[in-house]
Amino acid sequence: MTPSAHGSAAEPFGDRLHRLVVAKRSRLCVGLDPDIERIPENLRRAAVNDAADPNEGAALAIERFGQAVIDVVAPFAVAVKLQIAFYERWLSAGIGAFERNVRHARDRGLLVIADVKRGDIGSTAEAYAAAYLDPPPALDADAVTVNPFLGLDGVEPFLARCRQRGKGVFVLVRTSNPSARDIQDLSCEGEPLYLKVADLVARWGEGIRGASGWSSVGAVAGATYPDELRRIRSEMPWTPLLVPGIGAQGASVRDASGAFDTRGMGALVSSSRAILYPPGDGSMDAIAAAARVARDEIESACRSIA
Amino acid sequence: MTPSAHGSAAEPFGDRLHRLVVAKRSRLCVGLDPDIERIPENLRRAAVNDAADPNEGAALAIERFGQAVIDVVAPFAVAVKLQIAFYERWLSAGIGAFERNVRHARDRGLLVIADVKRGDIGSTAEAYAAAYLDPPPALDADAVTVNPFLGLDGVEPFLARCRQRGKGVFVLVRTSNPSARDIQDLSCEGEPLYLKVADLVARWGEGIRGASGWSSVGAVAGATYPDELRRIRSEMPWTPLLVPGIGAQGASVRDASGAFDTRGMGALVSSSRAILYPPGDGSMDAIAAAARVARDEIESACRSIA
Repeated sequence: MTPSAHGSAAEPFGDRLHRLVVAKRSRLCVGLDPDIERIPENLRRAAVNDAADPNEGAALAIERFGQAVIDVVAPFAVAVKLQIAFYERWLSAGIGAFERNVRHARDRGLLVIADVKRGDIGSTAEAYAAAYLDPPPALDADAVTVNPFLGLDGVEPFLARCRQRGKGVFVLVRTSNPSARDIQDLSCEGEPLYLKVADLVARWGEGIRGASGWSSVGAVAGATYPDELRRIRSEMPWTPLLVPGIGAQGASVRDASGAFDTRGMGALVSSSRAILYPPGDGSMDAIAAAARVARDEIESACRSIA
Repeated sequence: MTPSAHGSAAEPFGDRLHRLVVAKRSRLCVGLDPDIERIPENLRRAAVNDAADPNEGAALAIERFGQAVIDVVAPFAVAVKLQIAFYERWLSAGIGAFERNVRHARDRGLLVIADVKRGDIGSTAEAYAAAYLDPPPALDADAVTVNPFLGLDGVEPFLARCRQRGKGVFVLVRTSNPSARDIQDLSCEGEPLYLKVADLVARWGEGIRGASGWSSVGAVAGATYPDELRRIRSEMPWTPLLVPGIGAQGASVRDASGAFDTRGMGALVSSSRAILYPPGDGSMDAIAAAARVARDEIESACRSIA
């Protein structure tokens, strides 16, 4: 029987994630960053012909691409992380495609992380949390990414959905990009800012730990900074980590391995461009193969830890 | 003749903003936060009857509300700041309403600030910048708000539109919410983080100053922290400030006055809920009156400085 990604409404996200990783023997999250310039030419052309205006054409093309990718990576991934910017690029038409790709991924038994990185004052954050984590007709994703810059009241509406609806949140702690240093590495009271943020996030998640021990409040920490990633893992032992940066951003699976605890648990490694746009013909077979290879490399790295 | 908000494509945003403030004798930005629970009952009911599904009904109601508000505040405001979360709450239907409200505000001669607070790694930020600041069929707003947590490469795609297309950006420096302290006030190398961010933002905007002296790269600084606001003004003398927090969030126009330079220039004061939801019958006349009063109070505060 396929393990259920969505479980009961009350099952905490941290437990759901842990259970699926064990059942599926995968710690892979496939990142859906559907860039119109890079998707297969035949999809792009067909959609432009089928659509009434340019945004709708582009949105239709990325929707078809996203749907096909979801189908072929579903056996190998625990979760998909849909990067909303590549949908939002096409405004309302793109958001429609995003909604349908999210529902398709849920139907395929995948955990769905809406990579939205929202952050705003409390009353506004409430609107974002409702949009992405409330039941239909809202999006009802399993988890979202959020930005911590505004502090607790900007995160609290998301935490409420973790407590009440079994949802999850991944708060940015140390991002994978080169300029992450500009602000996240500033020295604050003797340690880099990102560790201060890690402490806050661990505290926010302390009361939302399930039977597995894992919190429903996770953190984003890039594999492109392996030393920082190790420090983050040790500072927040019960916080699931979402780890982007392998592949196109330059990190290896080995760089990501510091995200796991000594039993090889506690992290999802996310790969986007290296899976979506593999060298060669860009066929769905090549995408499936890239996902399988990534899954296997991550599992192998975890076995060597545990 | 009505001053043109949009000027020539090449006119820098900082100059456009300065010119309009002088011509219109207003430093008021009206914040559009269309909360379905608070808009007039008749609008809400009619839209639900006219629409095919719940998200479309809600989106139609806030679109009609937004359009009516834009019409009545246009004589008093220099800019409108559309808070996308209250549209995004209704997913693709809401973003459609957002697009049409933005275009309506432009048609009424207002500067349009898309309050999206996006922040992501460079390749992703490029998609956001294209969505909001590129020509139609993209949104083509005049300016956006962005989150600095990811550092320069997450902001650079927005800066490129400031340089090339006369667009503007307001980077979060010190937000108006109670939890702003959690991260923004952490002591970094002897000063609070928000001043480090202010320095970075001023540097990012240094090369994008127009003939007026004002940069096209602005900052968001809340009126709810008047002392911090004064420090920010003095640290970044050529950075236009977007100042939320008066009214529903508890600050007064007097609290906001530290955002202006000694000539009474350099800031837009943004009011949302106090204008959208005035005490009484919630009529458009009451909204117009609230906008006029806010405009007059701000102008009076500036005359007493200059």
